[in-house]
Amino acid sequence: MISKNQIKFVNSLKQKKYREEQNLFVAEGNKIVKELLVSSIVVKQVYATSDFMRNNKLDHSIERFEVKENELERISSLVTSNEVLAVCEVPSFNFAIESLQNKLTLVLDEIKDPGNLGTIIRMADWFGIETVVCSLHSADCFNAKVVQATMGSISRIKVVYKELASFFQEFTLMNQDPIYGALLGGENIYSSKLTKSGLIVIGNESRGISETALPFITHQISIPSFFYYKTEGGEAESLNAAIATSIICSEFRRR
Amino acid sequence: MISKNQIKFVNSLKQKKYREEQNLFVAEGNKIVKELLVSSIVVKQVYATSDFMRNNKLDHSIERFEVKENELERISSLVTSNEVLAVCEVPSFNFAIESLQNKLTLVLDEIKDPGNLGTIIRMADWFGIETVVCSLHSADCFNAKVVQATMGSISRIKVVYKELASFFQEFTLMNQDPIYGALLGGENIYSSKLTKSGLIVIGNESRGISETALPFITHQISIPSFFYYKTEGGEAESLNAAIATSIICSEFRRR
Repeated sequence: MISKNQIKFVNSLKQKKYREEQNLFVAEGNKIVKELLVSSIVVKQVYATSDFMRNNKLDHSIERFEVKENELERISSLVTSNEVLAVCEVPSFNFAIESLQNKLTLVLDEIKDPGNLGTIIRMADWFGIETVVCSLHSADCFNAKVVQATMGSISRIKVVYKELASFFQEFTLMNQDPIYGALLGGENIYSSKLTKSGLIVIGNESRGISETALPFITHQISIPSFFYYKTEGGEAESLNAAIATSIICSEFRRR
Repeated sequence: MISKNQIKFVNSLKQKKYREEQNLFVAEGNKIVKELLVSSIVVKQVYATSDFMRNNKLDHSIERFEVKENELERISSLVTSNEVLAVCEVPSFNFAIESLQNKLTLVLDEIKDPGNLGTIIRMADWFGIETVVCSLHSADCFNAKVVQATMGSISRIKVVYKELASFFQEFTLMNQDPIYGALLGGENIYSSKLTKSGLIVIGNESRGISETALPFITHQISIPSFFYYKTEGGEAESLNAAIATSIICSEFRRR
């Protein structure tokens, strides 16, 4: 059984404002919740079906609520709700610009689509990128759709939100590593010299890299299209932001 | 103004059954509809705001309905409906297995998520892959979400649905090109010899390549993780299917 107040509480966490106020976020689905349960993330509450409860041992510190599937639907953000929903603490960590030294770091200059942000965080995890820096107006990484798309990687990747101009200034004061930017007309990434550390800046889905970030880019790179063409009257084809980011990270990591 | 019958008609096209019956599909949004208007796709009807109508010249063969934004919402599949919706004819083309000769072709073995399928079609367009073969139970490429995610590439890529076992049999009878399969534990793609033509088989989002397709794979390939690890009790991290497909295609094309 789930009370009206609980329904209200969990649903309030769909809004960024309440997530920040409560310092909590929601994760849904078998795979992700199981992964969070064994991660460093603090899980506060679990709402799950009797099946899930039977098959998973929960720590005593976790408040547990056995619910029916139709109850789960009332608190779910998913189209088809799924066995289990967890309320978790937003992890806190200290971020020091020095931690980026000798590392490859992604900088997202206003990625707006939650699916894209989540997919990029998941991919960063795969390629051993520890920190993702987001501009202040990027999607919120604790949005339920982002958490869903990370498939658990949200527990391993440090996502920090920064005003980009001052972030870049601080970064360049600290070290000489290149700041790569994905830009149409940049150097062909397949034949570019790529370093093992530095920043990779990815622009907004439709507007690309902002005027704020542009002056800080030291190396413009791009993914060549196999057949580059513009359709008559139409716009040039392009790649989805998460896809472009992945191909770029793959190029950095394979060398 | 839009009539009740029109609302019913456009909304019926959200279902595959009616799309097949009518041989029609729906595309939404400024960028995509503009691209379809100048493509080989036959646009039958346009429902758009006065703004869109003023700024875009429509061929006389197209039925046009000027609508208010709240009317558009009633026929839209998008969370926030967008200026314009078009009803288009499903393109017909002849598919002959011989057309795959000397080409790189993607084979999707039950990609279920519409966003993934659309993103893969868009990416195929970027990398000059002309044909995408889907198993019979894959997502429908004329689903509104797929069309949306292709960002217009649906007008340029041939998507065909085939029973995979007989497709592979036919293919192998015709030529000796490799059939690559993305599989955990396959050869590191970064150091594999990759040919300029052949099939690249991508498996289902959670189950991977099916037992039907597996016997036909001649070359198993995989994308190495930078830090491969399993979380204690958790599952191994993985890449989103569209991301993995893109990295693989990028590797084939850069050489």
